[in-house]
This record gives sequence, structure tokens and C-alpha cells, in this order.
Amino acid sequence: MTQASSAAPTRRARSGGGAARRAERTAVRIETARFIERNIPNFEVLNEEALQIIEHNAETVLEEIGVNFVENPAALAHWREAGADVQGERVRIPRGLARKLCATAPSQFTQVARNPSKSVEIGGRNLVLAPVYGPPFVRDAEGGRRYATMADFEKFVKLGYMSKWLHHSGGTVCEPTDIAVNKRHLDMLFAHMTLSDKPFMGSVTEPSRAQDSVDMCNILFGEQFVQDNTVLTSLININSPLTFDATMMGALEVYARNNQAAIISPFIVGGAMAPVTVAGTLTQVLAEVLAGVAYSQLVRQGAPVIFGAFVTSIDMNSGAPTFGTPEASHITYGAGQLARRLGLPYRSAGSFCGSKLPDAQAAYETANSLNMGLLSGVNFMLHACGWLEGGLVASFEKFVMDADQLGALHSFAKGVFMDDNGQAMDAIREVGPGGHYLGCAHTQANFKEAFWRSDLLDYKPYETWADQGSRDTQELAGARVKKLLGDYQQPQMDPAVREALLAFVEQKKHSMPDAFA
Amino acid sequence: MTQASSAAPTRRARSGGGAARRAERTAVRIETARFIERNIPNFEVLNEEALQIIEHNAETVLEEIGVNFVENPAALAHWREAGADVQGERVRIPRGLARKLCATAPSQFTQVARNPSKSVEIGGRNLVLAPVYGPPFVRDAEGGRRYATMADFEKFVKLGYMSKWLHHSGGTVCEPTDIAVNKRHLDMLFAHMTLSDKPFMGSVTEPSRAQDSVDMCNILFGEQFVQDNTVLTSLININSPLTFDATMMGALEVYARNNQAAIISPFIVGGAMAPVTVAGTLTQVLAEVLAGVAYSQLVRQGAPVIFGAFVTSIDMNSGAPTFGTPEASHITYGAGQLARRLGLPYRSAGSFCGSKLPDAQAAYETANSLNMGLLSGVNFMLHACGWLEGGLVASFEKFVMDADQLGALHSFAKGVFMDDNGQAMDAIREVGPGGHYLGCAHTQANFKEAFWRSDLLDYKPYETWADQGSRDTQELAGARVKKLLGDYQQPQMDPAVREALLAFVEQKKHSMPDAFA
Repeated sequence: MTQASSAAPTRRARSGGGAARRAERTAVRIETARFIERNIPNFEVLNEEALQIIEHNAETVLEEIGVNFVENPAALAHWREAGADVQGERVRIPRGLARKLCATAPSQFTQVARNPSKSVEIGGRNLVLAPVYGPPFVRDAEGGRRYATMADFEKFVKLGYMSKWLHHSGGTVCEPTDIAVNKRHLDMLFAHMTLSDKPFMGSVTEPSRAQDSVDMCNILFGEQFVQDNTVLTSLININSPLTFDATMMGALEVYARNNQAAIISPFIVGGAMAPVTVAGTLTQVLAEVLAGVAYSQLVRQGAPVIFGAFVTSIDMNSGAPTFGTPEASHITYGAGQLARRLGLPYRSAGSFCGSKLPDAQAAYETANSLNMGLLSGVNFMLHACGWLEGGLVASFEKFVMDADQLGALHSFAKGVFMDDNGQAMDAIREVGPGGHYLGCAHTQANFKEAFWRSDLLDYKPYETWADQGSRDTQELAGARVKKLLGDYQQPQMDPAVREALLAFVEQKKHSMPDAFA
Repeated sequence: MTQASSAAPTRRARSGGGAARRAERTAVRIETARFIERNIPNFEVLNEEALQIIEHNAETVLEEIGVNFVENPAALAHWREAGADVQGERVRIPRGLARKLCATAPSQFTQVARNPSKSVEIGGRNLVLAPVYGPPFVRDAEGGRRYATMADFEKFVKLGYMSKWLHHSGGTVCEPTDIAVNKRHLDMLFAHMTLSDKPFMGSVTEPSRAQDSVDMCNILFGEQFVQDNTVLTSLININSPLTFDATMMGALEVYARNNQAAIISPFIVGGAMAPVTVAGTLTQVLAEVLAGVAYSQLVRQGAPVIFGAFVTSIDMNSGAPTFGTPEASHITYGAGQLARRLGLPYRSAGSFCGSKLPDAQAAYETANSLNMGLLSGVNFMLHACGWLEGGLVASFEKFVMDADQLGALHSFAKGVFMDDNGQAMDAIREVGPGGHYLGCAHTQANFKEAFWRSDLLDYKPYETWADQGSRDTQELAGARVKKLLGDYQQPQMDPAVREALLAFVEQKKHSMPDAFA
């Protein structure tokens, strides 16, 4: 029932007969599910009165306290022209102005993939899933915890390509720390463009690197196509509280000017970058997003943007950020309501956890986050798989563990089928009191699609499981990582395009010395 | 902010000064949280039309197909008298009759505990949490998987007593397989009554054992008190599809006649005991509960009952039941809506998983189930901690892991505070753009209560965690099990009552030979 765009088996047997059928059965099927289109309601934790209070307070924050646009005279000029009160770097925005400016941002947009069957619709009732972003370390059971390299990065892109329930290749799936800081974005983009055919993200660490990202897309898609279509969704973090730094804003300006999408996202560890209360944090989040999205529209009216909210709580004993907690859930649900009232696509949640290992703690915290992400109406879920240790680590095993759970979100989002087949009255009549459904016609007709089935987890009888080595989830996941990487086949690409991309990367790399900060 | 009934520290130091303060700090605090009173909405997966279709179809099932009351002539007579069409053991219930009979069941009732501060309100917006029920095996890392004994049972009762977020001591927390089948209920009840002071469940494996449960409560609470108050909530499974066996109905009759509560609960592995579709399963569940609850009211009008739904999906490859799956979630959400429309308290969900180990699979599946249990409006959650391997195993480590997660449900259920302190506008004003909240007055005033904090999970910096042995969740949980059992202190009880209970158990045990089936 999932609408899937499936690549044809690529090792198709050349001859007919039994050998061909055996080959068919063992051929690798690389499938990507269509993004989730929810047929379920959202969970709304705030009532109308609470929403109005938060919206009122956010406008008060913008009007009375204001936000700082740092080292960015052009931004200040934009704001002054729009009617804001600008004193030094402080921008105070009259009540209602930011919301009015936000109105020109689209409520939904398409991010086009180079394989058009994998393009995604961001906004509305949809949910697009993308992998973990940003960890400087990787971990697996064999190699332990170590600094991430470009080889690790490529493995994660391949795993993402092979993961059916992942719609998006992501961005910095881990930091390739063996490549110079000022050049690694080129290698990362080249990997996403050539090792996968799913949509991906651009660089935000310097405005020039954002421009490189657009330039590489010009090669991949064609210049006019990029101007007419959104082919990048990139992550612009706000320096909470209430601060917009020049680097991130510079990257945002590049993307907005080129009609490319940006997630405008407060980055909040509760109690440190925002008040310790849920309502206070939501107020600040809304104020920050209003200011950031409004600014994107000052740069280019109609530029596609996403209401972002990255929010964790904090362990007041150790100062460590904590994940999968009830307060983070409150905020995620509440921010979803605020985003919908603004008419903007919403980014939040992910496979968040604080655990050092892909163990039970990791899974409790992750499942809490994934479930709230689905029910809170998130449209773009970054970090949907692979996140470990508060985002310091990208875990190979956890990547496939989480990616498997994402399949369950797809099934849940379908809602309940109420047609005659769903009602199953004939089955109940056929079986009757004391009977058994396994053999009945309705079960036979439906059993293949009736229940979501994990591709990873253990459903074996105890004795079989024990005979096969009593493996835990991490071990099963390690085997699956090997299997997926072994089965990986690179998606086809016009060799001339690949060559042009490579030439761009080489030329850029030779144009400047390595920098490691 | 949690309303907690805390037993006074029992090792209170006798002298003042520094020694007393040190003793105070190290004294064991045994706390029990008040049952959850939700201040959040329910998640409703079915729309009005779907609900009406299911309700209509359930009446059709009762009217056309009917249910079997097996080996129970008295029940058939009750039904005939009430206006049902009885042919052999088949009872066909005219449209509307069962629902009308259900109307006399209370929508909420109090289950009184022997410590009255631990009595629970079942129904309404409340959620009462009780531990796992029924596993023949136990597991811990040290001893592996083994048949459960009475010594294990007592350990679980002690852990339940020591677990702050568990409101209820449960029933058969594991099967004490070293005690004769016809006598173990006596030892189990004695353990719940003497090792804990939380509410508990009665035996249902024979009507005579249900009577023993009531008789022991007569000793503990007084005969008249038991007639006037509900002091037992017991689990009556329906033999799905559509079959009510004499043993379970016999136990139900004992409890209903004595004003004691029963969970009337279809036990369904989807695709085996009910149709493979969600709507079909909900139809059957509703028909079964309608018939079962109606029957309870024929036995005694006003008897307290709970709308139960134990539902899993099935792995069509292995035939194994599966847990934490999206289809089970659909059913749990939908059944909650049906229960509320009937005006009955609702029992479902739990710490369900299929995993053999308390690993990531166990935690993903469990978190999926616990979250849906909270949001689906469950009023009584049996199996809320300790469930492993499809319910075959009670896990010591998972008991404390799950019990810790139940704390997060309490915090989430509080909803979002919208008072001035919650809005935190003064804090946002004080800190301003680029500031830091850790030191601000609002944070200082709120940080102790602001965020839920696990008592188990690891929040340490990586290096500290590594230095301390790189322990995973199972190891942390194993240490916590030992700590809780080491800290355990038996709640006080009138020695005469204890003696009378013991005398009853001894007398009953001597009155019959051991039976092991």
C-alpha cells in the first residue's frame, strides 16, 4: 500500500527458467518509499487560549526586546526600510510586522531530486525524513567511537540511499574531519550528488560555501532549472537567544536569493538558550522564527523556508542536554501548532538520544522523539536516523535501527481503512465464536499488507534465536549495515555531469590553501 | 509538582546535629506518585463516521452472529431473561440491548489500597499504572532466563513497592511455578498484601480462587468494608473470538457479586483471534466488551468494570505476536474512543515488546506502546513495566527501566503551564539577545522542577561514562535492581491481621492436595 518508487532489480538474470527465477529472488531491490502523507490528525497540546498568549508574547518580545542582527549592516538596512526600529545591531519589530512579512513564504514547496521520482513535497500533511546531521564522531561495535572521516561520510550516504523509509540524503551526515574545513563541503556535496539520487542539503558554514552548493547544483540540474526549482534545503540555525549571526544569515541570503529552501531553526538547550519553562521557550522560538522568516522574505519575497525548532531539555545536575523527555515533547507539539497557524512547513524532532551506545536508553529516547515527531505534524524531520550521544556521534548500527522504525511511522500515518475490506464483516461471519482467523479467506487476501514488519528486529521463537547466537539489536544492526553496504549499487549518472562536478570540486580545492578552523 | 504520598524516612536519626543531617541525607525515601490525572487531550485516530460504522457493525455481530457462553447454564438463563435469543450456548443480543445494560456500570471508581493515600481512581482522565502480569519465566543478566519462583515473585512485589511511578502492585507479576497451581494464588495475594501497601489484583484461574481473594480481602479490610468498597481489580480475559468460558465467567461472577472490579478484556493476536484489519478487530473487540460488560451488569447492576483491549499484531512469517507496531497503536487509540463513548474506564497498552533481551528492540517497542497508552486515554495500564519476550518473561532489569520511563509519562500528562511563571516573560526580558539563562532568577527559581529527570539513564559526560566502565542500560538497571532491593523496607501492618492472613493461607493449603495443572 506504500507508494514506492522502486529501481528495477539491476542484476537481472539473462536467461529464463529456474535459474532466472532464483536470480530474481536474490536480486537486490533498492526501494525508496514516497514521503509520508498523513491520514491521521495532529496531536495538539495547547488550547486556543494558550496559543494566543504565546503569539501575543512573541510579538511583545519582538517589539520590546527585539533581536540582534550581528555584523550585518545590509540586514539592518533591510529591517529599517521595512519599518523596524533599529538601534545599533538591535532590531525591534513593531507588533504584527514580522507575521505580515512571513505571509509571502510558501506553505508548501517541492524539493526536486535528480531522480524525479524521489522529489519531496515539504509542507501540508506531509513528512519528509532525512538522516542525522553534524556529528564529529562515528561509532560502530567493531571500531568504537572515533573521529569521522570522508570514508565514513560516504558509507552513511550509501546507507541512506539503501534505506527504503528515508526520503532524503541529508547534509553533514557526519563531519569528515580528515578534510580541510574550507573544502569538506565540496566532497560532501559530491558524495550526495553521485552516491545517491535522493534530495540533499547545502553548506551553511560560510556564505561562499552556500554559493558553491548552488553552483554545484547548477551543474547537476542546470542553471535555469535551479532558479525555477528548489533543489536544496539547508539548515540555518539561529544563535538563541534572539541573535542572528552574519555567517548563518549570509548563507540564508545566498539560498533565499537563489530560490533555495532554508530551515530557520532556533537551536535551544532549555534553561541555557531559552527559559526553563515550555511556554517561555515556545514564546522565544516563535519570536526567533518570526524574525528569521520575515528576514528571508525581505531578501526575496516568496523564498521557501521552514519553521524550525531544535529543542532539548537539560540535566540540571550535569548540565548535559537530555533527549526524548516530556518537556521537549511539549515544545515540539506546541511549535507544530504555532507553525501551522503561521502557514509554514515545520521542522523538528529526530532520532534524538543522549545515550553513548545504541542500547535501550537510546531506543526509549529515540522512540519518544520519533512518535512525537509524527503526531506533532512535523513536515521535515532532520536527524530521523543515526543520532547518538546528544548528536556528537553518528552510529552505523543506530542508523539502520532507526531507519527501520521509520517504516512504522509510514504505516501509522496511513490511518485506519474503513472500506468493506477494512470492516471485515464477512471474516467475522465466516469464523464465528471460537473459530480461528488464520485460514479464513479475508486473512489470506490481506496478510501480506496487513501488518508492518520490521526488516531488522527479532521475531524468532526463543529457541531459534538462542541457537543463532542470542544476538541483541546492536548485533543484528551491525549485520544489516554490512548487508546494505554489500548490496549497494551506485545510481546511474551522466558521466559528463559527474566529470563537470569533479572538475568544479578540484578547481575550488586548488584555489585556496587548506584551513582547519 | 507531583503530588506524592511519601512514607516518612524510616531510619530517622535519633540525635540532632551533623550526624542527624547526614543520616537524613542517606535515609531511604520511599515515594509513590499519585496516579496520573491528565491535563492533555487524547489522540483520536477515528473520525465520527468511522466510530459509528464500528458501533453499528458491533451490534450487527451481537445480533446476527452472537457470542458463546460456554458450560454456563446460569449465564444463559440470565441472558434469556434479559431478552437475548439463546440457542444452545449461542447468545444473540438484540441491537441496543448490550449497550443499554452497560449503562449501569460506573464510569469511574475508586480502588482502595490498605494505605489509603495509595488508593487509585480508575476512569475519567486518570491513568493508573500496574506491573507486568503472567510471565512463566524471569530473566536477569546474572541468572539468564529461567522458570519463575515465589522468591522471584516477592522480589517483583518489592520492586513495585519501591517504584515511585507505579501506582499499583499488580497481580501475577510472574507465575511462581514452584508452588502448586491450586495454591499459588494464596501466596501471591499474601505477598501483595504484606510486602506492599499499594492496591492489587485477585485470582481468576478458578471461581473458588476468586472467592479466596475476596475472603483474604475480608481479613485485610474487614467484611463490610469490602462490600462497600472496591479493593480488588482483576483481569477477566475473553476467549476471542466471541467466546466466554466458564472459568473466567465464574471468577467474574464472584467479583461482580462482591462489588469488586473486573477488567473485561478481549485477548487478541490480530489475524488469529480477530480479523487482520484494524476496523475489523475494533468491531470484534467492541462486540466482545459489550457482551462481557453487559453480563457483569446482569450479575450485579453497578458492578465496577473496565473496558479492556489486549491486542497485538502478528508476524505472518513466523506466526509470532509482535508488539509496539503501528496497527496495534491504531487499535489502542480506536478502542479508547469506543470506551469513552460507552462511558467506561479503559484498560490497554503496557511495556510491550517481542525482544528476548532488554535491548534497543525492547525499548523501541515499549516506548511506542507506552506513548500510545498515555495518548489513547488508557485509565488502567497493566503490564506498564517489566514485560519481555511477548510476555513470556518478566525481566528484572526491564522492570526498573520501564518504571523509570513511567516518570516521563507523569510529566508529559501535566500539560503546559500557562501562568506568569510558565510564560517567563521576565526571564526573556532579563536575559535578552545573546545572553544566557542558566544564571537568571527565573531559572534558579524553577530548575529543580522544570525538567523530568531519569533516575536510571546515563547523562554523564562521555569521559566520565567511559571511566566508569562504559555501562549500557541493562547494566545500569541491574545495579538499580540491587539498590532498590537493598533499600527495601516492609510497610507496617497490624500483626494480628498478618497472622490471620497467614492462618487463612495455611488452612486453605492444608485443605487440598497439590495440583499442578
